[in-house]
Amino acid sequence: MAQEYSSQALAILIDELRRLPSIGKVSAQRLAFHILKAPSERALSLADAIRAVKEKVHYCTVCWNITESETCDICYDAKRNPSIICVVEEPKDVITLDRTGEFRGLYHVLHGALSPLDNITPEDIRTRELMLRLNDTVQEVIVATNPNIEGDATAMYLSRLINPLGIKVTRLARGLPMGGDLEYADDITLARALEGRTEI
Amino acid sequence: MAQEYSSQALAILIDELRRLPSIGKVSAQRLAFHILKAPSERALSLADAIRAVKEKVHYCTVCWNITESETCDICYDAKRNPSIICVVEEPKDVITLDRTGEFRGLYHVLHGALSPLDNITPEDIRTRELMLRLNDTVQEVIVATNPNIEGDATAMYLSRLINPLGIKVTRLARGLPMGGDLEYADDITLARALEGRTEI
Repeated sequence: MAQEYSSQALAILIDELRRLPSIGKVSAQRLAFHILKAPSERALSLADAIRAVKEKVHYCTVCWNITESETCDICYDAKRNPSIICVVEEPKDVITLDRTGEFRGLYHVLHGALSPLDNITPEDIRTRELMLRLNDTVQEVIVATNPNIEGDATAMYLSRLINPLGIKVTRLARGLPMGGDLEYADDITLARALEGRTEI
Repeated sequence: MAQEYSSQALAILIDELRRLPSIGKVSAQRLAFHILKAPSERALSLADAIRAVKEKVHYCTVCWNITESETCDICYDAKRNPSIICVVEEPKDVITLDRTGEFRGLYHVLHGALSPLDNITPEDIRTRELMLRLNDTVQEVIVATNPNIEGDATAMYLSRLINPLGIKVTRLARGLPMGGDLEYADDITLARALEGRTEI
């Protein structure tokens, strides 16, 4: 059949939805029909929300977190400790870490991690901007990149760059996740947990 | 924390995405960050596609299938057999059935099924519009509502309404799905398969 859908606009919408991560053909079709059936205000407010995010949201000129102002709420907050900077890969990691309430310093968002295989070099992520922030106030940089090869490579690279400045560089502890069962832990996690054992 | 996200626009987008079917909080957040990171053209073409669907797509004045013209491609197609009308619940069912290539008649979309529990009565779905289509040309109405309680109730209601007009009313066969294993078939499907057994 030349045309599967009786409306070109519907076919285009399904096609656009399929480009989203983890949305397959069946999901895209179901979402499109949902949008088609929803009241116009609902569908248009989704369209407007997508447009608004692209128009209003940009990056904090200090830490590269997302914001609608020039500097983000966290950088602007005078109650936060400017002597510790926590380095993360993505803006969503700021949300995740800040939700714990454990950290009251500042953040720096790299927008990626080093990956020679994917051709991502220090110039492709916000490393230069991080180095420019490291003045006398900063005493510690916590590298909170993901616990995988790219995150490890990025942490290693940053520690080599920052250590000579006399600033402490730390990483998040690796070990057993809370609520897990020893027998289900993978070998690498177990090895790390042994390596990083603490006295009680 | 008063505000979980550092951007109001992002929070709104996540909220809008969560209203979509089978999109939870984590999925909505992942989709929103994807949209945030995507090139502007990509995100805006999704927003435009949503808008276009609401603006351009409406219902065929004959069969209530979706279309961008006054009558849909299927109703407009002179090569299709106007003596058989296949009644379905939703526009997506037209796509599913027509994909098989087995049916070359016309369709009628009810936009729902009868459901006393949800207070959906014949006035809430396009039954009146179906009855108005039943002229001398129509010889058979195939009721292809879903094989569940609501679909069954709708089929029963329509057959009682249409049979007195001397028009044949049929339903899709019920039985074992192709590729299935007997031992995994549920009791109701098996009972229906026995009931509707055919000679070979």
